[in-house]
Amino acid sequence: MGSRNLPRLRLKKGEDRRLRAGHLWVYSNEVDTANTPLKAYEAGQLAHLEDHRGSLLGTAYVNPHTLICARLLGRDADARLDAAWLKQRVARALVLRAALFEQPCYRLVYGESDGLPGLVVDRFAGVLVAQITTAGMERVRNEIVAVLEELLQPEAILLRNDTPARELEGLDTGVETVLGTLPGTVTVEENGARFEVPLAGGQKTGWYYDHRFNRARMQQYVRDKRVLDVFSYIGAWGIEALVAGAHEVTCVDGSQRMLAQARHNAALNGRGENLMAIAGDAFDVMKQLQKDGQTFDAVVLDPPAFVKRRKDLDEGALAYRRLNTQAMELLAPEGILVSASCSYHMPRERLLSEIRRAGQRARRWLQVLEQGHQGLDHPVHPAMPETDYLKSYIVRVCTP
Amino acid sequence: MGSRNLPRLRLKKGEDRRLRAGHLWVYSNEVDTANTPLKAYEAGQLAHLEDHRGSLLGTAYVNPHTLICARLLGRDADARLDAAWLKQRVARALVLRAALFEQPCYRLVYGESDGLPGLVVDRFAGVLVAQITTAGMERVRNEIVAVLEELLQPEAILLRNDTPARELEGLDTGVETVLGTLPGTVTVEENGARFEVPLAGGQKTGWYYDHRFNRARMQQYVRDKRVLDVFSYIGAWGIEALVAGAHEVTCVDGSQRMLAQARHNAALNGRGENLMAIAGDAFDVMKQLQKDGQTFDAVVLDPPAFVKRRKDLDEGALAYRRLNTQAMELLAPEGILVSASCSYHMPRERLLSEIRRAGQRARRWLQVLEQGHQGLDHPVHPAMPETDYLKSYIVRVCTP
Repeated sequence: MGSRNLPRLRLKKGEDRRLRAGHLWVYSNEVDTANTPLKAYEAGQLAHLEDHRGSLLGTAYVNPHTLICARLLGRDADARLDAAWLKQRVARALVLRAALFEQPCYRLVYGESDGLPGLVVDRFAGVLVAQITTAGMERVRNEIVAVLEELLQPEAILLRNDTPARELEGLDTGVETVLGTLPGTVTVEENGARFEVPLAGGQKTGWYYDHRFNRARMQQYVRDKRVLDVFSYIGAWGIEALVAGAHEVTCVDGSQRMLAQARHNAALNGRGENLMAIAGDAFDVMKQLQKDGQTFDAVVLDPPAFVKRRKDLDEGALAYRRLNTQAMELLAPEGILVSASCSYHMPRERLLSEIRRAGQRARRWLQVLEQGHQGLDHPVHPAMPETDYLKSYIVRVCTP
Repeated sequence: MGSRNLPRLRLKKGEDRRLRAGHLWVYSNEVDTANTPLKAYEAGQLAHLEDHRGSLLGTAYVNPHTLICARLLGRDADARLDAAWLKQRVARALVLRAALFEQPCYRLVYGESDGLPGLVVDRFAGVLVAQITTAGMERVRNEIVAVLEELLQPEAILLRNDTPARELEGLDTGVETVLGTLPGTVTVEENGARFEVPLAGGQKTGWYYDHRFNRARMQQYVRDKRVLDVFSYIGAWGIEALVAGAHEVTCVDGSQRMLAQARHNAALNGRGENLMAIAGDAFDVMKQLQKDGQTFDAVVLDPPAFVKRRKDLDEGALAYRRLNTQAMELLAPEGILVSASCSYHMPRERLLSEIRRAGQRARRWLQVLEQGHQGLDHPVHPAMPETDYLKSYIVRVCTP
């Protein structure tokens, strides 16, 4: 499809500013709908985006039904959303990861940050798990599959299109194997440990590659230690602690099934006897551990997003504070706290401030040793703070 | 000296808030001087700090002549500034570093973050370089030397008391060997490379340990690459790039003498033939390199603080922008930029924003791969943003 004769989408005066600074999104209230009505567009259709004077800002795909009503693909008039264009972008994403990871296990495509708005692809060696989250990308679903096949020759491709974002875009949701036969589990090697990861039944794309470097840093602190891994899922933090020399790890998770997988993974690494698992609500389990007089040399907190929307910030922040307080109360003197948040709406400074407050409540004296971010296979787009969501702190928790 | 009968220093109403949140500093305008005149104090004298109602906030040392007129040593009435107290704090700092570094080369004491306001100590195996920056710490100078001697049995201790901060405190400035005989250089091993570091003639305490982990991350990106190291000092980034497999490194620095030391250090690591050195102003040298049509696969920017005071922010930020633009213009397609700032008054987000703007000017498309911080031997005090000064970004710079 040639791009030169695309319909135009015009912004109101001043609404080009964020885009000119490099951002890729247009909000529906920014469009000059008197001149270029959004309802003239089909979901996913391409357009030339222009400022209020008619100067070209770039080529975008449009969805008239969503708050983010357009996403830029490129700054010129010729950006196309076809197989050749997709191939160039995916190849650029691939060359970065291939150069920097020893194992072919990483997030291969991270949406806007890789110039591919609405597309996420995780690679588990020969198995690819993709998520298409916008109507614009959905239009080239077959091309995406073909390009991934051409560039990577995978055994299987799973479309993990069961995200709520798709509903907002007016797309159906579901999970579908679109190439090959999906194995029951895939193997991930990370920081010296091996994991079997359930794809169809797991969380999100199955594995959280984003914490890889934070887990590697955690490994520096746990030799011969007793570690508590809260919200353990299938044991990534805990088992990497074990292979780094931790004496014993206790995993806490709400799901018996995921804990069984964690135990299985510990055994895979020859440390099955050193992993305990407690199923239950994290706050309740930690309270009970404290009642029982248990202490740990290190506690890892990697909770699900407590702040899903901006308006939940204060409530969510309180939950982080409670969680961190409980963790500190379980720590032996001079213990190590690893405290993470994956909530985009929980600012980095706020998490630190809640950790500080937890220290006051628990009457501990804190030293922040490390500040962690999402791994390099989740690059941050410098004009899009929305792409920068993950934070972790490694804190030394001292008795005064 | 017993602490129970100390004079009191009373704060005005509301001025206890920052201290109750964990901060250690009192500003002179926060003191209730009608009740407790600052001029009644000698520089360095201990006091019990109290809020406007007379509730104890802790024990502090006072300097009536400085903007920061008191620094808290502890939250109780019994904190002492004597050899036993110092020993406990230094020992707590030491046990952290000893557990986490293979080589005895690190910042041993990082002031307020280690509960030792006004004291910095860098360790180069058997040689210690200390800075005492406040009148309160100066009073126990002999005790500090004795405690360091007892805990570490060093061959030599150098007091590098030539910082402007001391003048503000009313202290003399100078450099003095207070124990043993100072060798001309000390050896630092860092990230697989060895360096001879001149102590007496070098910058600050001689070596910038704070970037250790950022340099280790940089090493992941430079194999077989041509690297430009701008503001190279004695070659830390460049030579660590070479030992990580960089093909060739060009160091740029204002000082011929430091460049000679960089060449010497490259030779020490068997890579003397692969290090070029250009003396001159960084901006001028980069302009000339561009004129000459030179390109590099990676550029490291580790400039001195361009923003020394808050009011210099806009001007300094422009300098960072120019510097980053010039670096991007020297990068080959898909090149790597390592961009740092050690200015506390240059916020992390502002540096990123200047890098983003540089990308616009240089017409490049950026992916922020890593966000770096000061190393764990420079812990951050969670209530004192002043202790968190170092930032670095690793950015992939693509042609659109």
